[in-house]
Amino acid sequence: MKENASETVRDIVKKIRSREISTADDTANAAAYALEKAASAIAKGTPEEFLKKLAEAGMALSDSRPTSASLQNSTRYVIHMATLATNNGLPFEDIKSSAIEAAKTFRRKIDEAKVKIGEIGSKRIGNGDLVFTHCYSTSVLSILKKLRGDGKDVHVIVTESRPAFEGRKMAHEILKIGFPTTLIIDIAARVFMHDVDNVLVGAEAIAANGAVVNKIGTSVIATVAHEARVRTLVAAGTYKFYPESVIGQRITIEEEDPSQIYDEPTEDNLTIRNPQFDVCPPEYIDAIITEKGVIPPQGAYFLLRKIFEEEYGFKM
Amino acid sequence: MKENASETVRDIVKKIRSREISTADDTANAAAYALEKAASAIAKGTPEEFLKKLAEAGMALSDSRPTSASLQNSTRYVIHMATLATNNGLPFEDIKSSAIEAAKTFRRKIDEAKVKIGEIGSKRIGNGDLVFTHCYSTSVLSILKKLRGDGKDVHVIVTESRPAFEGRKMAHEILKIGFPTTLIIDIAARVFMHDVDNVLVGAEAIAANGAVVNKIGTSVIATVAHEARVRTLVAAGTYKFYPESVIGQRITIEEEDPSQIYDEPTEDNLTIRNPQFDVCPPEYIDAIITEKGVIPPQGAYFLLRKIFEEEYGFKM
Amino acid sequence: MKENASETVRDIVKKIRSREISTADDTANAAAYALEKAASAIAKGTPEEFLKKLAEAGMALSDSRPTSASLQNSTRYVIHMATLATNNGLPFEDIKSSAIEAAKTFRRKIDEAKVKIGEIGSKRIGNGDLVFTHCYSTSVLSILKKLRGDGKDVHVIVTESRPAFEGRKMAHEILKIGFPTTLIIDIAARVFMHDVDNVLVGAEAIAANGAVVNKIGTSVIATVAHEARVRTLVAAGTYKFYPESVIGQRITIEEEDPSQIYDEPTEDNLTIRNPQFDVCPPEYIDAIITEKGVIPPQGAYFLLRKIFEEEYGFKM
Amino acid sequence: MKENASETVRDIVKKIRSREISTADDTANAAAYALEKAASAIAKGTPEEFLKKLAEAGMALSDSRPTSASLQNSTRYVIHMATLATNNGLPFEDIKSSAIEAAKTFRRKIDEAKVKIGEIGSKRIGNGDLVFTHCYSTSVLSILKKLRGDGKDVHVIVTESRPAFEGRKMAHEILKIGFPTTLIIDIAARVFMHDVDNVLVGAEAIAANGAVVNKIGTSVIATVAHEARVRTLVAAGTYKFYPESVIGQRITIEEEDPSQIYDEPTEDNLTIRNPQFDVCPPEYIDAIITEKGVIPPQGAYFLLRKIFEEEYGFKM
Amino acid sequence: MKENASETVRDIVKKIRSREISTADDTANAAAYALEKAASAIAKGTPEEFLKKLAEAGMALSDSRPTSASLQNSTRYVIHMATLATNNGLPFEDIKSSAIEAAKTFRRKIDEAKVKIGEIGSKRIGNGDLVFTHCYSTSVLSILKKLRGDGKDVHVIVTESRPAFEGRKMAHEILKIGFPTTLIIDIAARVFMHDVDNVLVGAEAIAANGAVVNKIGTSVIATVAHEARVRTLVAAGTYKFYPESVIGQRITIEEEDPSQIYDEPTEDNLTIRNPQFDVCPPEYIDAIITEKGVIPPQGAYFLLRKIFEEEYGFKM
Amino acid sequence: MKENASETVRDIVKKIRSREISTADDTANAAAYALEKAASAIAKGTPEEFLKKLAEAGMALSDSRPTSASLQNSTRYVIHMATLATNNGLPFEDIKSSAIEAAKTFRRKIDEAKVKIGEIGSKRIGNGDLVFTHCYSTSVLSILKKLRGDGKDVHVIVTESRPAFEGRKMAHEILKIGFPTTLIIDIAARVFMHDVDNVLVGAEAIAANGAVVNKIGTSVIATVAHEARVRTLVAAGTYKFYPESVIGQRITIEEEDPSQIYDEPTEDNLTIRNPQFDVCPPEYIDAIITEKGVIPPQGAYFLLRKIFEEEYGFKM
Repeated sequence: MKENASETVRDIVKKIRSREISTADDTANAAAYALEKAASAIAKGTPEEFLKKLAEAGMALSDSRPTSASLQNSTRYVIHMATLATNNGLPFEDIKSSAIEAAKTFRRKIDEAKVKIGEIGSKRIGNGDLVFTHCYSTSVLSILKKLRGDGKDVHVIVTESRPAFEGRKMAHEILKIGFPTTLIIDIAARVFMHDVDNVLVGAEAIAANGAVVNKIGTSVIATVAHEARVRTLVAAGTYKFYPESVIGQRITIEEEDPSQIYDEPTEDNLTIRNPQFDVCPPEYIDAIITEKGVIPPQGAYFLLRKIFEEEYGFKM
Repeated sequence: MKENASETVRDIVKKIRSREISTADDTANAAAYALEKAASAIAKGTPEEFLKKLAEAGMALSDSRPTSASLQNSTRYVIHMATLATNNGLPFEDIKSSAIEAAKTFRRKIDEAKVKIGEIGSKRIGNGDLVFTHCYSTSVLSILKKLRGDGKDVHVIVTESRPAFEGRKMAHEILKIGFPTTLIIDIAARVFMHDVDNVLVGAEAIAANGAVVNKIGTSVIATVAHEARVRTLVAAGTYKFYPESVIGQRITIEEEDPSQIYDEPTEDNLTIRNPQFDVCPPEYIDAIITEKGVIPPQGAYFLLRKIFEEEYGFKM
Repeated sequence: MKENASETVRDIVKKIRSREISTADDTANAAAYALEKAASAIAKGTPEEFLKKLAEAGMALSDSRPTSASLQNSTRYVIHMATLATNNGLPFEDIKSSAIEAAKTFRRKIDEAKVKIGEIGSKRIGNGDLVFTHCYSTSVLSILKKLRGDGKDVHVIVTESRPAFEGRKMAHEILKIGFPTTLIIDIAARVFMHDVDNVLVGAEAIAANGAVVNKIGTSVIATVAHEARVRTLVAAGTYKFYPESVIGQRITIEEEDPSQIYDEPTEDNLTIRNPQFDVCPPEYIDAIITEKGVIPPQGAYFLLRKIFEEEYGFKM
Repeated sequence: MKENASETVRDIVKKIRSREISTADDTANAAAYALEKAASAIAKGTPEEFLKKLAEAGMALSDSRPTSASLQNSTRYVIHMATLATNNGLPFEDIKSSAIEAAKTFRRKIDEAKVKIGEIGSKRIGNGDLVFTHCYSTSVLSILKKLRGDGKDVHVIVTESRPAFEGRKMAHEILKIGFPTTLIIDIAARVFMHDVDNVLVGAEAIAANGAVVNKIGTSVIATVAHEARVRTLVAAGTYKFYPESVIGQRITIEEEDPSQIYDEPTEDNLTIRNPQFDVCPPEYIDAIITEKGVIPPQGAYFLLRKIFEEEYGFKM
Repeated sequence: MKENASETVRDIVKKIRSREISTADDTANAAAYALEKAASAIAKGTPEEFLKKLAEAGMALSDSRPTSASLQNSTRYVIHMATLATNNGLPFEDIKSSAIEAAKTFRRKIDEAKVKIGEIGSKRIGNGDLVFTHCYSTSVLSILKKLRGDGKDVHVIVTESRPAFEGRKMAHEILKIGFPTTLIIDIAARVFMHDVDNVLVGAEAIAANGAVVNKIGTSVIATVAHEARVRTLVAAGTYKFYPESVIGQRITIEEEDPSQIYDEPTEDNLTIRNPQFDVCPPEYIDAIITEKGVIPPQGAYFLLRKIFEEEYGFKM
Repeated sequence: MKENASETVRDIVKKIRSREISTADDTANAAAYALEKAASAIAKGTPEEFLKKLAEAGMALSDSRPTSASLQNSTRYVIHMATLATNNGLPFEDIKSSAIEAAKTFRRKIDEAKVKIGEIGSKRIGNGDLVFTHCYSTSVLSILKKLRGDGKDVHVIVTESRPAFEGRKMAHEILKIGFPTTLIIDIAARVFMHDVDNVLVGAEAIAANGAVVNKIGTSVIATVAHEARVRTLVAAGTYKFYPESVIGQRITIEEEDPSQIYDEPTEDNLTIRNPQFDVCPPEYIDAIITEKGVIPPQGAYFLLRKIFEEEYGFKM
C-alpha cells in the first residue's frame, strides 16, 4: 500500500515536472489526489510521524513546480488541516481522516468554484456581446456555458495563443457550447478590439496587489483593451491567489523549451526567449471574478488575507 | 518583341496576384520592370498611341493589387514622365526613351532610398542599444548594416511574426550582419519592452496623416512601446506614401488565406480572420525615416504633397 | 387599518412607478415608511404569517423600481431585522415592533448619514475653493451647508443638468446657503474645469467595484476633470451601495420618456434615447465620502461586504 | 445707387450684430455680398479713392463680428484682390471689376468647398458606420449626402446641442437625407461612444496649431471619443482658418445672452455663463477634412500659410 | 523626578518645534520616550489623575507638530493603552506600568517594522536592478541592507533632494552598504528613468486613500516613473498611517524657512515658497511595503482601519 | 590686424570652451563677431583663399562647442553668404563685404527675433495669468516685457534651476520688469502646477521633429504640466533649429563638471551625473513661438527646411 502511495506521489511529481500535467487546475488537483493517497497509505504511527510523512509528500509535490500558486495552495491546505487536527489533540485515525477529507475538499473546491464563477461571471456579459478571450481557460468556458444555458447569445473572438496554440482547442470548445467563434492570431488583437464588449480571460495566479499572471500575451491584450475603453475581466478561483506575494515574494515566470518556438539548428548569437506567462498590472484589469464574488483587482489583497488566514492557516 | 513585352506584363501581373511577388519593394520593382519592357516593345505610333498602350499596361499592373501604394506609385511615375514628354511635344522616340528611363529611375530610387535610409536611420540608434523589430524589412536591415559598418554594436529582438514567420528570416539576416539576436513570439513583446531603446520597423504604406500600414501587429507593438516610453521609428522610402489618402481614400487591408493560420477542416460557426496588415496611428510613431530625412508622422502630409506634386504629377 | 396600510403601500408603489417619488433618498424613505405602515397594520398571526405579509409588501415596493439600490436596501433592511427577530424566537408583538423600529431606523440612517457626510466631506474642501457640481444632490448640499456653518467660502459651478434641469433647483439651494453660484450648460464643463479645485457629486447607486451610477453625464464630467487633474469626490450614504454587484449583477440604467428631450411628432427613422444615469468608472473617482468615512472607490467592495453582512443580512 | 449699397452694408452689419445672420458660412457669404454691392455702387474716382471706400465698407463689416474668422477672411480676400489690381496699375473700371469678381469668387469658393468636402469626407466613412455628430453643420451634411448618393448606409447619433438645440434641426436634415438618426442630450455622449465608428463635426474656426473652435461642447465630445479610441474628424473649408493665430492671436470666445440658458429673474450671486464655442485641442482631432484634402491638425499651420500667402495676401 | 520628566517633555517639544528632531521616526520615537519619562515621574494618584497628567504631556507633544502622523500615532498609542488599563479597572501601578510599557512597545514597533520592511521589500528588488530613490529614508536603507546581506547587487540612483540635500547623506549610507551609487539633481530624474527597474522611496505619512505624503518632489518622481512604466514602491511602517484621513481630514503640508532656498535680502514682490512635502496620488504608486505586508495603495484604507481600531483605539 | 583677428577667434574659442560664454544666444553672437573680425582681417587674396581662411576660422569656432545648434548656425550662415558671393563671381572686396555683412546680419537676426517673439508670444498670455518658467531665458523675458508694456499683469513662478541657480537671476529680472514673482525649488513644480495658466520656457536647440532641448528639467516640467492640462509654450528663434536632425543626427547632451552638484572628496563607487540639458518630446509641447510665428512642434520640420534651405544653404 505504502509503495503504491509513494508511487502515486512520485508519478504525479514526474508528470508535473514534465508538464504532462500542466494547467493550474490539473496540477492542484493532482497534488491533492497524491496527498490523499499518501495519507491513506500511512498505516499507523504518532500524530507527529503522520504529519512528518505527509509533509514530506507535500514537499515533494510542491517542489515539482515551485512557481505554481495553485499547487502550493493545494499542499498548503491539506497539511494545514492535518496540522489543525493534530493541534486539537485528535487521535491518529482522526488526523488521517482529516487529511484525506481535506484533499477531497480541496478538489471539490476547484469544481465548485468553477460553477460559481460561471454563475457570477455570466451576469457581467450581456446578450449579444462580442467577447474576446485569450488561450484556454475552463473558468471562461464555465461562464460561456452558463450564458448558453441562460439562453444568451454571444460571439467569441479567440486568439490562437502561440506558441502551443491552446486557442484552437478553446475555439472548438466554444463551438461545442454553440457560440459563433472567430479565430485570429494573437497580435491581430488591436484590429478587432474596438468592437469588443468585454475581454474575458482566466489566470494562472493572482498576486496580492491584483496583478494577474496568465498565459503570455495577456498583458498585451489588456493594454490594447484598456486603450479602447474595453473592460477586461479575469475569471479565477481564489485557490489561485498567491499568498506569499503579501510578504513581497514575486512570482517567477518560467520559460518553456525554445524549440517550441523555433526548432532550427541553433546559431551562435541567436537566443530564443519563451516565457510561459506575463504579468498583467492591476490598472488594466476591471474586475476579478472569483467564487467569492466580483472584486476589483485592488481588492485581491483583502480577500486573499481573509481566505488564506481563515482557511489555509496563512500567517502574516 | 511585343508578345514578349505583353508576356512580361502578364507574367508579373500573375505573380503579383498570386503573391509570388509580395513585398512592397518587389512589387513596385517588378511593375516598373514590366513597364520598361512594355515601353521598349512599342515599335512605333503616334505619341497618343504610345501613351495609350503604356497606360493599358500600367492599368493591368495597377489592378493586380489595387491596395499596394508602392505599386500604384511605380506605374504612376512612369506614366507621368511619359505624359510630360508628350505634353512637351517630344517625338515618339524621345517619349519612349523617357518612359524607359523613368522605369529605370524608379527602380534606382528604391535602391538609393534604402541606402540613404540606412545612413540617416543609423544615426538615430546608439552604440549598445537594444533594438526591437517586427517582421522582415529591408529598410531596417539597411540601417543595421550601416550601424555594423560604423562599428557600432546593437542587440536586436525580433518577433517571429505570425502567421508566416517572416521574423525567422529577419533573425537570420541580422545574425549574418553580426548582431546578437533574440527571437520571441509576437505577443510576448511587453515582457521585453521596458529594456528596449528603440522600436524600429518598416512599412507597407504611409498615409497623409502619418498613419503607417505595416505587417499585422505593428500597431500593438507601437502601443506597448508607447506605454513604456520607448520611441518607435518607422523606416520607409517615400515611394510608399499613399497620395490618395490626401483626398480621403482609406487604405484597404487585405486578408490572407485562413489556412495560413489554421488548416483544420472548417466548422460551421468558425470564422478565421487573417488581416495582413494593421494601421499604426501617428500618435504612437515618433519618427518616419525616409530618404528625404527624418519626419514626424504629422509631417508626412507635406512631404507627400511636395514629392508627389513635383515628381509624380499628383494633382490636388 | 389594514386597508389603510395596503393603501399606503399601493400608493407609494404607484408614486414610485410614476416617478412622482424619484430621488434615491425619497424612494428609500417612502418604502421604509410604507413598510412601517404595513407592519403596524398586521394585527395578529404567527411569526411566519407576519413575515410573509411583510415580505409581500416589501416585494411590491421592490418591484416598483427594481433598479433602485436604495429602495432594495430599504426593504432588505426591514425584512432582515424582522427575520432576525423571528429566528431569535421572539413573540409576534416583538417581531412586529422590530419591523416598525427597523423602518424608523432606516429612515433615521438616511438623515444621519447626510449630516455625517456633511461633516466629513466639508473637511475635503478648502476655504476659497471653486467647486463643480452636477445635478441635484442633498449630500452635496449637506457638505456645502457645513462649509458655510464653518465660515468657509466657496464658489460653486452648477450644470443645468438636462433633460430635467435639476441643476437650476440646485443653484437656488446653493444661493440660499449663501455661496456665489455659476450656472452653465452641461457640455460646457471643459471650458471651466481647469480652474476648478474639486468636482463634488452625489450618487444614485454604488457598485462593489467602486463604479458610481449617477445622473446622466456624471461620467463625462469626471472624465473631463480627470483630464485636468481635478479630483472628483462622490458623496453618498452606504445605503446606496448595491450588494448584488458583488455577485456580478450589473446595474440596469433605465431610460426616461423621450418626450422629455424632444416632443415633436415622431418621425420614422428617428429614435430618441434618454438614459437617466450613466456609470462613472472607479478610475475617474478619487474618493467616495460616506457616513462611514472617506474611501477610495476600490474600497467600496470591502465596506459594502462589511456593512451588508453585518447590518442587512446579505450572504455571499 | 450708392445709398442702396451703403444700406446693404449697414443692413448686413446689423444682421450680423444681432445674430440674425449667425453661421460661419452665412456671415462670410453676406459680407462678400455686401462688398460686391458696395463696389458696384462706387461710380467713379481714383483707384485710391475706390480702395478707400471699399476698405471702409470692409472695416464696417469686419467690426460687426471681430471674432468670426470666415467673416474676416471674406473681407480680407475681396480687398486683397482689389489691392492687387491697384498695385498692377489697372484702371478704375478694372479694379472695380476685380473687387466684384472677388466677392463672387469668394462666395463660390464656399459652395465649392462644401461639395469637395463631401467628396473627400465621404471616403473616410465606411458603409454601415455609426457616426456621431454635434450641433448643425452643412459640411457634415454634405458628407452625409455624398454617402447617400454613393449608396452607403450609416446611422447617425446627433446631440440636441444646448442651448439653442441646433441638433434637432440637424436630425431632421439627416432624416431627409434618409439615414436613421438617434437624438440624445449632449452630456449622454459617453454612454453611446464605445459603439461609434467616427465622430464627425464642423468648425467655426481653425487655428494655426490645428486647434478647432466649434460649438460649445465639441472639445468634450472629442475628449470622450479619444478615451474610447474613436477617431474625430472635423469638416471645414480653408476659409475658416484663422491666419492671425500664426502671429499668436488667440481666438476670442464670445458669450451669448444668459437668458438663452435660464430666464428666471436674476438673483444676486448667480452668474450665468454661456460661451458659444469651445476650443478642441489638436491632440483629440484625427483629421481635418478641407476642400484641399485631409490634413492632420498639425498640418493646419502649413496649409494655412500656403493658402493665405498665395490667395489672401497674408504676410508673415 | 517629576521635574525631570516635565523637562524631558519640554525639551522634546522644543526640539520637535525647532526641527532639531525632524524625521517621522525620530519624532515619534522621541515623543514615546518623553511619555515614558512622564509616566514614570507620576508618583501616585487616582487612575483618572494619572490619565489626565499623561494626556497633558501627550497634548503638549502632539501640539509640537500637529501635522506629523507618526507623532500623533505615538501619543495616541500610549494614551490608548493606559486608557484601556484604566477602563479595565486596574490599580494605579498597573496603569502606570501599562503606559511605560506602551511607550517602549511603540518604539520597538518602529525598529521591528524597519527590519520587517527590509525583509519584505528586498524580495521585490531583483539582483542587478537599477533602483531610483529620493531623499533620505531608513526604510529604504533597511531594504538595501537586506539585499546586500542576501548577496544581491543593485545600483542606486539618488537625487540630491533640494533644499536640504538629504540625498547626499543617503548616497553615503548606500555607499557604506556597498552598492555603487549615482548622485543627480532632482529634476534630472526623467533623463535616467527609462533604465530604472524600481523607484523606491520612504514616506512621511500615508492617507486612507493610499496617497503618500513624502519629501517634496516625490510626486514628480512618481509621475515620471509612471510615464516610463517604472513601478514606484513606497516603504513605510503602519505607524505612519494617518487615521484622521478616514474622516476627511486633509494632511497639512508645512512650509520651511524660505532662506533654506534663497537667502538674499528680500525684495518686494518676491515670494519664496518652500513646501516640505508633496502628496503623491495613489494612481502613481504600485505598492506600499509595510511591516504587515505589501499592499496596493487602495488597500491602505482597510489596513489602516484594521490596525488603528485594533491597536490604537481609533473609532469610526 | 590679422593677428588681432586670429586673437579674437582664439579668444572667443577659449571662452566658449571654458563656458565663460555659455548661453545659446551669446555663443552664436560671439562666433558671428569673431567671424566678422576674421573676415575684416583678411587683407587680400583670391576668393578661394578668402573662403578657405574664413572656413578655417569658422571650423575653429564650430569645434569649440559642436553641440551648440545656434553656434553651428552662426558659422554656417556667414560662410554660406560668402560662398554665395563667390559663386556669383563677385570680386574679393565684395565677397569680404558680404561675409562681414552676414556676420552683422546674423547678430541682428538674434536681436530682432527676440523682439518679434516678444510681440507674438505676449498675445498668447492673458491678463492676470499665472505663468510658470524654468531657468533663465531672454526670449521669455522679451515676452514678459512686452506684456508689461501692454499694461498686462501676470504673476510668474520661477524655479531656482539647479545646479547653477539661473532661476534666481531670472527672478530678479522679472521683478525688474515689475511682475510679482514666486521662487520655488525645481522639483516642487507639481504642487503649484494646477493653478498655472501657461508654462513658458526658452530653448537651447530645436530638432526637426519638434523636440526641444533645454535646461535640464524642462522635460519634467512639461510632463507635469501636461498631466495638469496646462499648455507648455517654448519661445525660441529659428536660429536655434538644428538642421542636421533632419538627416537623423541626434543632439548630444553634454555634462557639466560634477563638482557643480557636489564637491565632496570623491568616493569609489560614487558617480555624479550632471547633464546640462534634457530633451522635451513634442507631445508635451503645445506651441513653439518663433520670430516666424507660432508653430505646433510637429511643424518644426517644415519651417526648419524652408528657412535653412532658403537662408543657410542647407541641402537635403
